[in-house]
Amino acid sequence: MKILLIGYGTMNRITARLAEEEGHEITGVILRDKERDVPYAAFESIDAADADVAIDFSHPDLILPLLEDEVKTPLVIATTGEKEKIIDSLKKKSTDTPVFFSANMSYGVHVMNEVLKKALSMLDEFDLEMVERHHNRKVDAPSGTLVKLLDTAMDHRDGSYPVYDRSSVHEKRKPEEIGVSAIRGGSIVGTHDVIFAKDDEVIEIRHQAQSKEIFSNGALKAANELIKHSDGFYDYNNLFEER
Amino acid sequence: MKILLIGYGTMNRITARLAEEEGHEITGVILRDKERDVPYAAFESIDAADADVAIDFSHPDLILPLLEDEVKTPLVIATTGEKEKIIDSLKKKSTDTPVFFSANMSYGVHVMNEVLKKALSMLDEFDLEMVERHHNRKVDAPSGTLVKLLDTAMDHRDGSYPVYDRSSVHEKRKPEEIGVSAIRGGSIVGTHDVIFAKDDEVIEIRHQAQSKEIFSNGALKAANELIKHSDGFYDYNNLFEER
Amino acid sequence: MKILLIGYGTMNRITARLAEEEGHEITGVILRDKERDVPYAAFESIDAADADVAIDFSHPDLILPLLEDEVKTPLVIATTGEKEKIIDSLKKKSTDTPVFFSANMSYGVHVMNEVLKKALSMLDEFDLEMVERHHNRKVDAPSGTLVKLLDTAMDHRDGSYPVYDRSSVHEKRKPEEIGVSAIRGGSIVGTHDVIFAKDDEVIEIRHQAQSKEIFSNGALKAANELIKHSDGFYDYNNLFEER
Amino acid sequence: MKILLIGYGTMNRITARLAEEEGHEITGVILRDKERDVPYAAFESIDAADADVAIDFSHPDLILPLLEDEVKTPLVIATTGEKEKIIDSLKKKSTDTPVFFSANMSYGVHVMNEVLKKALSMLDEFDLEMVERHHNRKVDAPSGTLVKLLDTAMDHRDGSYPVYDRSSVHEKRKPEEIGVSAIRGGSIVGTHDVIFAKDDEVIEIRHQAQSKEIFSNGALKAANELIKHSDGFYDYNNLFEER
Repeated sequence: MKILLIGYGTMNRITARLAEEEGHEITGVILRDKERDVPYAAFESIDAADADVAIDFSHPDLILPLLEDEVKTPLVIATTGEKEKIIDSLKKKSTDTPVFFSANMSYGVHVMNEVLKKALSMLDEFDLEMVERHHNRKVDAPSGTLVKLLDTAMDHRDGSYPVYDRSSVHEKRKPEEIGVSAIRGGSIVGTHDVIFAKDDEVIEIRHQAQSKEIFSNGALKAANELIKHSDGFYDYNNLFEER
Repeated sequence: MKILLIGYGTMNRITARLAEEEGHEITGVILRDKERDVPYAAFESIDAADADVAIDFSHPDLILPLLEDEVKTPLVIATTGEKEKIIDSLKKKSTDTPVFFSANMSYGVHVMNEVLKKALSMLDEFDLEMVERHHNRKVDAPSGTLVKLLDTAMDHRDGSYPVYDRSSVHEKRKPEEIGVSAIRGGSIVGTHDVIFAKDDEVIEIRHQAQSKEIFSNGALKAANELIKHSDGFYDYNNLFEER
Repeated sequence: MKILLIGYGTMNRITARLAEEEGHEITGVILRDKERDVPYAAFESIDAADADVAIDFSHPDLILPLLEDEVKTPLVIATTGEKEKIIDSLKKKSTDTPVFFSANMSYGVHVMNEVLKKALSMLDEFDLEMVERHHNRKVDAPSGTLVKLLDTAMDHRDGSYPVYDRSSVHEKRKPEEIGVSAIRGGSIVGTHDVIFAKDDEVIEIRHQAQSKEIFSNGALKAANELIKHSDGFYDYNNLFEER
Repeated sequence: MKILLIGYGTMNRITARLAEEEGHEITGVILRDKERDVPYAAFESIDAADADVAIDFSHPDLILPLLEDEVKTPLVIATTGEKEKIIDSLKKKSTDTPVFFSANMSYGVHVMNEVLKKALSMLDEFDLEMVERHHNRKVDAPSGTLVKLLDTAMDHRDGSYPVYDRSSVHEKRKPEEIGVSAIRGGSIVGTHDVIFAKDDEVIEIRHQAQSKEIFSNGALKAANELIKHSDGFYDYNNLFEER
């Protein structure tokens, strides 16, 4: 594939390296800072690059204005922030070109979320707890991925709610509780555990992300699939099913 | 429920205790050894006990002859061994009464198998490994449950095959391999892990059975559901869906 | 051994069963409620039973008055509560008979604590986190065993302190923090994890207790060793070393 | 510190990067291939570089001849292969300069081995199993680190021996067995588990190495300590104790 990168921060630098290792070509980049020195040709609009696909790991300030132009290039968009506005804007574009959007580009996290849905549908009577582990520089807790998994669980369990600190509660656990724990230390790799427990049985699902490369790999995998699709709005739930 | 027990070994003694704790009544038992002293009335045919449901944890030698009589009592059958013959015989009975059969009565193992199928459908490119842990008195390895999970995996992955001992192979792992490891020690509770691994991402599913009670609990849960069903042959795949 | 049981609650009923399975003899019990019907001879003072050793899983109200009499029978004492008073009283007795005391009779928890000390002495620069899991009926959090492990860690790390809830703190983890998490669900067996993490390296120590039998087994193991010792006050730190 | 690198393969390139990040200076390298282009001054003998310490991640062919010269520079040596010869040669040098040698430069693996020794001394009656996980390109199984841990265990347990494949043995586990399992998949990070199991109790120790940086970090940590020492032969067992 000939790939246009939108943004050239940590994530798209990784995307460029992985793409080239797989034999793809980076035809150029679009940057907010026009003066910045990068190893690829700079473009000012998406279609100008004449790429097979554009992969965005940027910022609403960069991507939203670009979406005001006509766009015929297939789009893989991973911007976080201003989610509603971006989806709105992307849906309009999707009548002219195939568009893929996901706030979490990791394919494995998507799979974990789907597997969790399957488990939730069969394990009504099991207590549910969630634990995440990350490196000691991570400021927020719980992680964005855990919040996503928690949302999935609360959608399936009416009246359920998270409990973040049992040390301050001196009461028996209620079935509607979803315990949430966050562990921080050293350079621990991002790990998410979902624990279902009932009398004498425990079922656990764990996802472990060893590096940021999983997000770039997810974007490349999505790009590879997207360019075979007709115009439309895709996410991980329909990308690999409809064609 | 009024329950007839077919067989009164370790499993059905646990079933009796759990059933009574839940407020059910054990109306009687059917035994191979007629002389044996048990705390319930002994019967010689299934319908004679006038029970709401019969729960079997016995042996083909006991259950197969009983199935030659007419049977109108709903049946929950967990005999292991002679699987084909028993299924054959049960399918014939299922025109007259609802019949539930599972070679592994643990509901959690069923769930793990279903969750595994979901994961397999999305993780073609991931390497797959399976590990089980059990107490040090267990003679066979890998466990019957691991074999069941392995069968599920091999059904989804054409050309895949198990590898039991890497210490004797000095070669890079092939994608078609499914590594199988068995750990034995002390009174470790039955644990099954399925590990999917790709570049920078690992997804694991674990089932842990803390006691034999899960099999009795599974049988009681199935019985409770089965008696609301019309005649037919059920297993965990359709019991909770069709009614 | 001929064993006298002080108290006959859940723990000493398990002790009696395990002791008899191992070929020991229960010569009698001492109870608070003299009217209670138990399958062993009742005594009113420790030496009256003429036992090789007395094993106590009772209550300060029962054991403290008994210690006011002369005692020549070796004592294994696991009462919880009134710790100072009991130790005080036991130390006085220990000039006449060997006395073993531990607030946690599990030998494995003792080992975990010793292994933790070894690790703490070598891992100054590693972040430290602790996680425990228990069944959903447990009201207190964190568990008594975790508090014991935490005390061990804080003794080795000047200025360290526990953090129970990261979701309410939006700051980078400080090296002096010791994260503490408690997971509750179903009948999960008591599990304690200590996690040391630094750049690119994680060392974990885990203890899992599958039943209350570990406490009775610990008491029997201690009793077996104690009766070979001369008078003195023993705990797990010196019982297996000095003789 | 002013550091001389002996060898400039993957490991010493990482060492150079980490050393510079910590503010140390790479004064030069010694290479087998004199023509090779590297970003540091090339030297032909150790003392010529006038460094505070030399760090070797090379090969017996390079380091052994260098040790035939007089050496006054403190040495941190991590060559694998020809272990006896190298130790022999280093011991001779250690009368003139402090020398540190370890076949496994990971400080965490050293700690795990020490913690394992502590556990082994207290857990005679527990069954012992070992499991390692690595990426799918690793050809040998079990890993060198597992072999080291296994050696430690066999030294403590007379008559013990490894069992690599339980699927081919249809017998109850014997107490002298040490089960060894190797898991391979994707880019799983190097993980070593030691599992002690007895009736109702399991104690596990786990080491996880997230990258090769741990070996360079270990070498730098050792170098930093070594230059404060007097002449002598050191390894991880005495480096942090004697000064």
